[in-house]
Amino acid sequence: MRRKRASRNVIALLTDFGENDHYAGTMKGVILSINSRATIVDISHHVSPYNVRQAGYLLWASYRSFPDGTIFVCVVDPGVGGKRKIVGVETDRFVFVAPDNGLLDMVRAQEDIHQSYEIVSAPRIDARSISTTFHGRDVFAPLAAALSQGKSVKQFGRLYKMNKAAPIFYERGKENAEARILHIDRFGNLVTNIPAKYFDRCAVRIGRSTITTFIRNYDEAPRNTPCIIVGSSGLFEIVLREGSAAERFGVSLQEPNVLAVVG
Amino acid sequence: MRRKRASRNVIALLTDFGENDHYAGTMKGVILSINSRATIVDISHHVSPYNVRQAGYLLWASYRSFPDGTIFVCVVDPGVGGKRKIVGVETDRFVFVAPDNGLLDMVRAQEDIHQSYEIVSAPRIDARSISTTFHGRDVFAPLAAALSQGKSVKQFGRLYKMNKAAPIFYERGKENAEARILHIDRFGNLVTNIPAKYFDRCAVRIGRSTITTFIRNYDEAPRNTPCIIVGSSGLFEIVLREGSAAERFGVSLQEPNVLAVVG
Amino acid sequence: MRRKRASRNVIALLTDFGENDHYAGTMKGVILSINSRATIVDISHHVSPYNVRQAGYLLWASYRSFPDGTIFVCVVDPGVGGKRKIVGVETDRFVFVAPDNGLLDMVRAQEDIHQSYEIVSAPRIDARSISTTFHGRDVFAPLAAALSQGKSVKQFGRLYKMNKAAPIFYERGKENAEARILHIDRFGNLVTNIPAKYFDRCAVRIGRSTITTFIRNYDEAPRNTPCIIVGSSGLFEIVLREGSAAERFGVSLQEPNVLAVVG
Repeated sequence: MRRKRASRNVIALLTDFGENDHYAGTMKGVILSINSRATIVDISHHVSPYNVRQAGYLLWASYRSFPDGTIFVCVVDPGVGGKRKIVGVETDRFVFVAPDNGLLDMVRAQEDIHQSYEIVSAPRIDARSISTTFHGRDVFAPLAAALSQGKSVKQFGRLYKMNKAAPIFYERGKENAEARILHIDRFGNLVTNIPAKYFDRCAVRIGRSTITTFIRNYDEAPRNTPCIIVGSSGLFEIVLREGSAAERFGVSLQEPNVLAVVG
Repeated sequence: MRRKRASRNVIALLTDFGENDHYAGTMKGVILSINSRATIVDISHHVSPYNVRQAGYLLWASYRSFPDGTIFVCVVDPGVGGKRKIVGVETDRFVFVAPDNGLLDMVRAQEDIHQSYEIVSAPRIDARSISTTFHGRDVFAPLAAALSQGKSVKQFGRLYKMNKAAPIFYERGKENAEARILHIDRFGNLVTNIPAKYFDRCAVRIGRSTITTFIRNYDEAPRNTPCIIVGSSGLFEIVLREGSAAERFGVSLQEPNVLAVVG
Repeated sequence: MRRKRASRNVIALLTDFGENDHYAGTMKGVILSINSRATIVDISHHVSPYNVRQAGYLLWASYRSFPDGTIFVCVVDPGVGGKRKIVGVETDRFVFVAPDNGLLDMVRAQEDIHQSYEIVSAPRIDARSISTTFHGRDVFAPLAAALSQGKSVKQFGRLYKMNKAAPIFYERGKENAEARILHIDRFGNLVTNIPAKYFDRCAVRIGRSTITTFIRNYDEAPRNTPCIIVGSSGLFEIVLREGSAAERFGVSLQEPNVLAVVG
């Protein structure tokens, strides 16, 4: 059963468009052209270009803080204009729209999904044809605006079975998901895929270093010592007090970032 | 005839202020002090400092996606506090406010402009005098807020003939506008000033390379081969699939970027 | 006497979260979950990590431009989760919420503060416990939302005497505040702590250079000559016309930036 939608729905945007370009602003112009009362919130437009996994993490880490009825519009879409599908997914509280490229895998691991739909049409705001390179403007934005007016994804799509979700979270003794870094935040904290339940019961190896210092808050952190803390989304983070763990370990999101869980 | 303005007008901001500073936020504070019901949208605050031509492109590429009645406030203004004029321009659908420094040239090439006005006064929100360095706060923002309440630029200006617009778009056989790069987007795509009508009927030379591969969407792009695609605003873009054409050709907006159209 | 709050209060955010992460977006989700009618404005999320002094400057330079009733939420908080206090402060026009780490010192030097409160509780939006690393989401955002609904900081805190404010502004002949650089803006302008009243009555030495050229607007600036101008907040700025004074003098906010006032 879906809860009744709030009267003033929020549209939350997550893209890799950056903010040097007009792309995010143009999407907002389209949304407001259709629903002048929409409330638009940016999750981030600074996903690394084409980094679907990072986008999936940012969506998963934030979506539960949004109001019931929020429409999440996720455009990290290397296959734009080609054969990839755009999907619309509804849960009790939310609507998600994204390319079917794995971006929604973390949300799917957490949420009870009712139905998923392939989007086959979108409202039009003018006579221009749909571009092959900017579906953010020509498909995602008008669709989001219509959904924020109370329409359902069903009205724009047909039932569709999404691609199988890849395993995300580390589980001890299973080989389906190895320990790794999902995201590096502005402070250089390394967000891993290791859930809080392992707190204090293991150590983490990154490159040649083994991290064994577990802290409950930053005040407990010894100076100049990498530590493990349970981050705000319930996952291990490797942190360095008032410094950057990413710099210390020379880690970037562009390279493979496999960790070892030991002990 | 101007269409009736929407009841809840949008103010769209385009500046080179960046987001490390308080400048854009301060403009929003001023706008909301005057019209608490204004809807403010950022097109971009990351125009390269003083890059009037890039700002003109970003405005042109985005403005048609905004709702009727939108007020576009463009502050890329190296002459702030000096003799340059601020102009207000109305079309059937929109209002534009900008320094008279060429920023509006691309819009003027596209739109039927009714009248243009030199802005000679702006509403005041406190007793402080107008600064000589931050007209975004002291002139543009209060003006935009008043316009969003239904006032017209005429009430704040006097009739004015704008500086002659420079030619923008490439035209074969004419010498009035050479082919060049208007903008480099986050993905490293090179946006040119060559209109879609030349699609498939020429090649483009950049430095020592000649680009002859035309594609209709990214899926058609061969790996590792620079291609030409018609971008979302109807101009040629030089792109590299899942890579950066700007890096490949060592192009930046700080240098002259003349292209040759051949064949 | 506090003025009557506007019916649609503004919440202004100032953090060092950057925009690559979901942190600012998540705070907005929480705020809208509690008060769907809140108007949220970003002052900046790009304060240098942990740079409390820079945050204090950005707040001080912008807050007077905001509407009566604005709630300023400042999260530059290296001590998050430890013993530092969060304070709420009310003036005639505004409410400020920040860690008690000096961030509010410049505002306190300007404003008549009625009472200050240590925040001891915050509204809850779900059953999750308060994280030790993300009080922006778990304390500041729900508190701001409640304040925007007309609640007062008193309802969430107890009377508290803030740490003594450090002197900020340069005063000739006093040793309580030395001349220094508070902020470097996007254009490379160096914002000092020297008030406008010294205009034309001194020179400023930075490293081995002495700057003696005072200008009233950028048009007066000789090419390639560093100048002093009174900036938009009434403080001296060292500027280089269409260039970067920061680059010229090799100044960054990470190093001590003491100036000498001479003559």
